[in-house]
Amino acid sequence: VSTVQVLLGERSYPIRIRPGSLADLGEALVAEFETSHAVVITSKPVAARHFAALESGLLRAGIAFEPLLIPDGERAKTLRVAAGLYDRLIEGGVTRQTLLVGLGGGATCDVAAFVASTLLRGLPLVQVPTTLLAQVDASVGGKSALNHPRGKNLIGTFYQPRLVWIDPDVLATLPPRERRAGLAEIVKVASIWDADFFKWLEENAGAVLGLERDALAHAVARACGIKAEIVGLDERDAGLRALLNFGHTLGHAVEVVNGYRHVRHGEAVALGMVFAARLSERRELAPAGTAARLVALLARVGLATEIADLQAQRPAYLRALAVDKKGADGAIGFVALREIGRAELVRLTADEILPGAV
Amino acid sequence: VSTVQVLLGERSYPIRIRPGSLADLGEALVAEFETSHAVVITSKPVAARHFAALESGLLRAGIAFEPLLIPDGERAKTLRVAAGLYDRLIEGGVTRQTLLVGLGGGATCDVAAFVASTLLRGLPLVQVPTTLLAQVDASVGGKSALNHPRGKNLIGTFYQPRLVWIDPDVLATLPPRERRAGLAEIVKVASIWDADFFKWLEENAGAVLGLERDALAHAVARACGIKAEIVGLDERDAGLRALLNFGHTLGHAVEVVNGYRHVRHGEAVALGMVFAARLSERRELAPAGTAARLVALLARVGLATEIADLQAQRPAYLRALAVDKKGADGAIGFVALREIGRAELVRLTADEILPGAV
Repeated sequence: VSTVQVLLGERSYPIRIRPGSLADLGEALVAEFETSHAVVITSKPVAARHFAALESGLLRAGIAFEPLLIPDGERAKTLRVAAGLYDRLIEGGVTRQTLLVGLGGGATCDVAAFVASTLLRGLPLVQVPTTLLAQVDASVGGKSALNHPRGKNLIGTFYQPRLVWIDPDVLATLPPRERRAGLAEIVKVASIWDADFFKWLEENAGAVLGLERDALAHAVARACGIKAEIVGLDERDAGLRALLNFGHTLGHAVEVVNGYRHVRHGEAVALGMVFAARLSERRELAPAGTAARLVALLARVGLATEIADLQAQRPAYLRALAVDKKGADGAIGFVALREIGRAELVRLTADEILPGAV
Repeated sequence: VSTVQVLLGERSYPIRIRPGSLADLGEALVAEFETSHAVVITSKPVAARHFAALESGLLRAGIAFEPLLIPDGERAKTLRVAAGLYDRLIEGGVTRQTLLVGLGGGATCDVAAFVASTLLRGLPLVQVPTTLLAQVDASVGGKSALNHPRGKNLIGTFYQPRLVWIDPDVLATLPPRERRAGLAEIVKVASIWDADFFKWLEENAGAVLGLERDALAHAVARACGIKAEIVGLDERDAGLRALLNFGHTLGHAVEVVNGYRHVRHGEAVALGMVFAARLSERRELAPAGTAARLVALLARVGLATEIADLQAQRPAYLRALAVDKKGADGAIGFVALREIGRAELVRLTADEILPGAV
């Protein structure tokens, strides 16, 4: 087992990463929690693929459990779904010792965390992320989230799980597009924090994408480790953690302009990272060639790197940039790359980010 | 100004207590938060009595603000009301810098805290409690709460305000019954933690009830201080904080058996405290005469001390005791008094608490 410790004082928790470990979670829960009762929040497609393995381990460990199904993906992230979970948990006799287990992608983990943080003022939470993106992103940071008709993730809390359990083997059933989108987040943390890991990715991205066991486990563990370092320094998202938004300013705009349904979050972030790296070079924050290395790595992973409609749709992108983020000076926080492995938050106006003609 | 510091590491906050200070909150907000935007969550009857004073201070301090009205009392503590507040706050352009101000009794403070803790992963929260109970109880502890059809306070979070602002003068409009119910909670913290304060109450309860300025301010400050000490030692309600449930085991049962609408929480707690003190004497945990002192003080305040229907309704009380609280050993945590000023958590079965014939 490779273990990443997320160090947050009394809210610290381990991320355990081991291929083929899904069936062993039951024993781990007994060892770590002295619990005898768990509720697994998951979706039908995820349950169909992974519940049997989890179930066998829970049964073996003598843990009473029941699955609660929620819709798959973003559709689950509503107050209505959360309220339904409250009902079912309360009717099922939930106590403050009931362990909530989130089994699924980022959306499922977000909902499980929201409910865990808001029922009985906090239930112990174990996250079992089943997509590459969720393994490296949702598993560290303690952000729970629901969507509101007016925007994504507007409702949510900070709430740390007690344990994150990652079995990279579950990714075998993940469509290649989802793997690539997850890899974008791995490239992101390498870009802002760890030049050596970026170099390792340049050499091993193909192996990760091909789900070679050692390479995949290393990539997941190092990405979690980087995020854990950053979050450990800034749990409440007051400063340093903003660096994790590298690629997100334009990435978010790509999602808004194209519609969340048509572009994966990781794909949008890849586009946003290339944009940010080029802007960093243009503003002489990063040395020439920085963006080219990023483009080459992302292209090797099979991710698009050019926002085709950026000039044609400039007004729409400008609107998407401006929403909600503007400070008193009319500028927004933008994560610039200083070099591969190092980033910095700068303040730029929307017009500096997206000038009339580039 | 008398200030009680609630010491919770980076989540520490002050409770400021000063008669006649409601109109000064605006200046305090500017001094403490560099904020220019606040939203006041309150109810119509509270707004009618107190909003003008608050408003004048906010205007003088140059803070842009708007009131958001919610139903008065427990009716506000629903997910539906919280969702309505999300809608209005998001439509109003809420940011992570928007200050939420809860102005009202315990229910309003509970809802304001829930929304503050779950919108944008946490908004800065200032509580302005306007009932005696809320001033001494809801203002310390960081518990937010909504009700669920199946039980009170089942939905909620731990979330600390940034400031609690107490103007005891607002209690002048409080009906005597509400004052008495609030005093029950003050007697409670004295009983479990501070024999000197209990003695002071024996001498000054009349002055507090009569809203004599110095006596009232001292009682509120000391009660907040005791609760702050206990919560500071046990923020997450894992041990010591259970002592604050003194009187609540039977008190809760009184509320369930008689219906929450017919009995004030403080009245039920007064009944429960007397019951607990007598049981403590019977089990030789507390010296003889302990319960008599408690009865005398509560009676002086005008609070009932005898649960009239206890034997006649014993099955209903037993059911109410058992719900949700039972541990693996069939016992429940019960706060016993060891003497005036000192309490202890013991484990008793429902039958030990309510034997067939007393």
